Amino acid sequence: MNLYSKHESTITKAIEALHQRTFFAAYPEHPAPAVYGETSDADGQAKFKASLGNKFGELKQEGPEGWIGVEESPYTQEPLGIAYPSFSVDTIINRAKSAYHVWRKVSAENRAGILVESLERVKARFFEIAYATMHTTGQGYMMAFQASGPHAADRALEAVASGYEELKRFPSSTLWDKPMGKFNIQLNKEWRAVPKGISLVIGCSTFPTWNTVPGVYASLVTGNPVIVKPHPGAVLPIAIVVAEIQNVLTENNLDPNICQLAVDTFDKMITKDLAEHPDVKLIDFTGNSVFGSYLEGLKGKTVFTEKTGVNSVIIDSVADADKVAANLAFSLTLYSGQMCTAPQNFYIPASGIKTLNGNLSFDEFAQKIVDNINGLVDNPKAGPFVLGTIQNKNTCTRIAEAEKLPGKVWLKSRSIENPMFKNARINTPVLVEVDASSKEIFSKELFGPIALLIKTNDTNHSIALAQEMAMHHGAISCGAYTTDPSVRERIADEMALAATPVSFNLVGGIYMNQNAGFSDFHVTGGNPSGNASFTNPEFVVKRFTWVGHREPVAAG
Amino acid sequence: MNLYSKHESTITKAIEALHQRTFFAAYPEHPAPAVYGETSDADGQAKFKASLGNKFGELKQEGPEGWIGVEESPYTQEPLGIAYPSFSVDTIINRAKSAYHVWRKVSAENRAGILVESLERVKARFFEIAYATMHTTGQGYMMAFQASGPHAADRALEAVASGYEELKRFPSSTLWDKPMGKFNIQLNKEWRAVPKGISLVIGCSTFPTWNTVPGVYASLVTGNPVIVKPHPGAVLPIAIVVAEIQNVLTENNLDPNICQLAVDTFDKMITKDLAEHPDVKLIDFTGNSVFGSYLEGLKGKTVFTEKTGVNSVIIDSVADADKVAANLAFSLTLYSGQMCTAPQNFYIPASGIKTLNGNLSFDEFAQKIVDNINGLVDNPKAGPFVLGTIQNKNTCTRIAEAEKLPGKVWLKSRSIENPMFKNARINTPVLVEVDASSKEIFSKELFGPIALLIKTNDTNHSIALAQEMAMHHGAISCGAYTTDPSVRERIADEMALAATPVSFNLVGGIYMNQNAGFSDFHVTGGNPSGNASFTNPEFVVKRFTWVGHREPVAAG
Repeated sequence: MNLYSKHESTITKAIEALHQRTFFAAYPEHPAPAVYGETSDADGQAKFKASLGNKFGELKQEGPEGWIGVEESPYTQEPLGIAYPSFSVDTIINRAKSAYHVWRKVSAENRAGILVESLERVKARFFEIAYATMHTTGQGYMMAFQASGPHAADRALEAVASGYEELKRFPSSTLWDKPMGKFNIQLNKEWRAVPKGISLVIGCSTFPTWNTVPGVYASLVTGNPVIVKPHPGAVLPIAIVVAEIQNVLTENNLDPNICQLAVDTFDKMITKDLAEHPDVKLIDFTGNSVFGSYLEGLKGKTVFTEKTGVNSVIIDSVADADKVAANLAFSLTLYSGQMCTAPQNFYIPASGIKTLNGNLSFDEFAQKIVDNINGLVDNPKAGPFVLGTIQNKNTCTRIAEAEKLPGKVWLKSRSIENPMFKNARINTPVLVEVDASSKEIFSKELFGPIALLIKTNDTNHSIALAQEMAMHHGAISCGAYTTDPSVRERIADEMALAATPVSFNLVGGIYMNQNAGFSDFHVTGGNPSGNASFTNPEFVVKRFTWVGHREPVAAG
Repeated sequence: MNLYSKHESTITKAIEALHQRTFFAAYPEHPAPAVYGETSDADGQAKFKASLGNKFGELKQEGPEGWIGVEESPYTQEPLGIAYPSFSVDTIINRAKSAYHVWRKVSAENRAGILVESLERVKARFFEIAYATMHTTGQGYMMAFQASGPHAADRALEAVASGYEELKRFPSSTLWDKPMGKFNIQLNKEWRAVPKGISLVIGCSTFPTWNTVPGVYASLVTGNPVIVKPHPGAVLPIAIVVAEIQNVLTENNLDPNICQLAVDTFDKMITKDLAEHPDVKLIDFTGNSVFGSYLEGLKGKTVFTEKTGVNSVIIDSVADADKVAANLAFSLTLYSGQMCTAPQNFYIPASGIKTLNGNLSFDEFAQKIVDNINGLVDNPKAGPFVLGTIQNKNTCTRIAEAEKLPGKVWLKSRSIENPMFKNARINTPVLVEVDASSKEIFSKELFGPIALLIKTNDTNHSIALAQEMAMHHGAISCGAYTTDPSVRERIADEMALAATPVSFNLVGGIYMNQNAGFSDFHVTGGNPSGNASFTNPEFVVKRFTWVGHREPVAAG
């Protein structure tokens, strides 16, 4: 079976979508039984439960040197008890080196076909991955399904499509025929897209597939063998993806070590050993800025990072303050503010904001946000599911510290009950008012459900601060509310200079946290929040080198 | 006058040529009077002569803080006496910052139109630039015309075309329309290609326009203001180009400081001050590896380098040894080996090479190269014009040292007479035999007309050494001669892994030194000889950032 032929129309449509940037999704985001099968949810949950306390035996990497695993569920605060095969760094690198010379010789068509086939296999396991994601990241069920399943698969397909397009951008051979007057010089020329070498993709604890698969699939489609080094706290979701890639590889008589899983534990991390290894040429990373900047500084590597940022919301004027407050409250509460796109700094003029019904004071608007957060988290049909849980205990400490900041605490964090998981680690958002002069407080990421209401002189002041934060400390998203077209353009221009995408005037069921595959470039790469973007041309072209050979026609 | 409309068909053809990679040249390479005008050569020479001993007054940069210039002609070994306006680093940076906000707001169409118009103006001055190039770089007349004139203009156009294509790759706006079941979420989305900021382009002494204009035009078309910092020894050729760019800018009511010339002198270089300035975001550099690597290591900059390499010729088997020796002798003699693509290390098996007429010993083949070099340089109609002169006195020292290397000196360097320039600095090639075990000798660039004949065990040994040199010390070109298809593919594959383009079996009037615009990627960017390539997609996409904004349709 030719997998390229099988998936050619998907690849073609995906490339088209890349350029149109209108809505496109190859994998439906709703866990509808009609789409995924009547028993798919129950089956996925059963599979997930069966994996607990057992060895993860699906990988095709031979001769494990140990079995390790330290995952815990933020819902139960109990270990998952899943053990993964472990290998020495030397073993992993040697296998990747050998796999490199296999994989680089597979045609772009076949690579793309194999990779899309692997996504089809992953699709059949979206529900299992959803439960694995819930119980490692602490996400609510719906986000866990969407982000780790269809949205991640779309991001992976986007990387495949983009890489495939770039590999096909120039001819593999041509006749160069130069008129010299009385004769022509004729050269046969050929171009090879040479993959750079071993690719290391380092995962994070909050989005273990969504943030990992773009690098994995971009490196693979361009011919590089991949080592996936997951966060020790969130292995299972991506382990399932790697297992399915390995299945398709072996079915096609290819070395499964073309994509390896390299698990480690908190007390013996192997990330630096892998990253610094001279044979590792490509590194993808999602995580904290200190480690990301260290990776960016490594010599002789091509490094793609998504680090941390300070996301701003600029509030100038609104049509309907209640709708705005509702939207922002949801953005902040969604997965307890643990998204890299969640808002943190809310810039509100001291004189308040203009609305269609007159002026609203700073305090009145602040109170509206408080009320909307309370309304959301105290709604038993929404609160626990929107909040999810806190992935990392350190976040709880940070929340407690935020309440001690010098400024009015508009809303304290508290816990609510999750009816299904009595022991779930839950913290609702904390909201603190900070003066615009206290830059030292709001010029860093306060990861988690922590928001600062910053009182500014006016909207120009708000814009200047938002731009400064983005330029110097990074920003992945920005929200802005204004009914004035000239203010809108000023924000659009100033934030563009800070390489920060702006969501204007969002109300209703769409939030600044959300970035859609095939349309939104996630992280621009142009400010300190990261040097790469999912998936722009740079994200794939830097993974291989064009090399051209030539020879006179007559010489053959 | 709309300059985009005027040049649209040129831009369209150039983009097409980028993808076809067949022969394409917008600017004819022959200095034919029929093309360039009957008096164009004489006029250009007269203009060049008139500039000697005078101030270069063409730049539109106001208020010079001094007038400086230290150029000398390698043909006369006398100063040119041309003085250029000089400015403090602060003045240059401040003007560039202000020009940034003008230029970034000019549409991609208008930028491309202005830039192609500037090339048309430069075309009218190709002969003047040719004489300026001869008397700064020491190139022969024909190379000076071609490399600094039409070939450079083609490379500039290539960068404009590639940049323009990337800027147009994604829509400036679209409707994102997501079906949600009972309703749709509709967002108006827009994307801005945000230029990164001030671009510094650092020129070299040997190819002052050819190596400089790709970075200049790539940065300009993508909206960045450019500071051209030429080599103090080779200013005039690129000063003319900058002056013509400024002419077109001012004619279009734009700030001429969008492209500034920043001249310095050997005793007070300003390159580091410019490069390290926090407002400089992009750096293009051609030159030595030490400085190139320093630039690559600067934080917060996007850096494009062409550094030095060790170019190899692998000789396995040949159809006609005389033709091969003639071709290689020419490659080595052309501009006295001062091209970054010139061959240096000739790997020849100790057992000799196979030819159609039987085996040729190492010594026999070496002698053929010697004879061909002598025949070429002693031909008064060819020698002085192919050799040109030695740009830098240090190269003469290096040549003298090469003759003291431990190994048989097959050919000593000498001088020959240039009938037009009695005082020309001329050194013919030196050829030294070196054993393959003496890696310390041949693992570095010996810039100038210095070639090493390296005796290897066999062709596999030759390939391994050529690959090792390229991987660890860089290579920009590679020649290979073999009549065996399996050996050919082995060389093609192994050198591709070292990111080195191979010219196979070149004989006749085409040489491994030559890289054609719109077809050959000059420097691949994949080995230590440089991290960038003229002009691949990476060369342009790294100069701007895609930023997307969005807003609900209903909200307007």
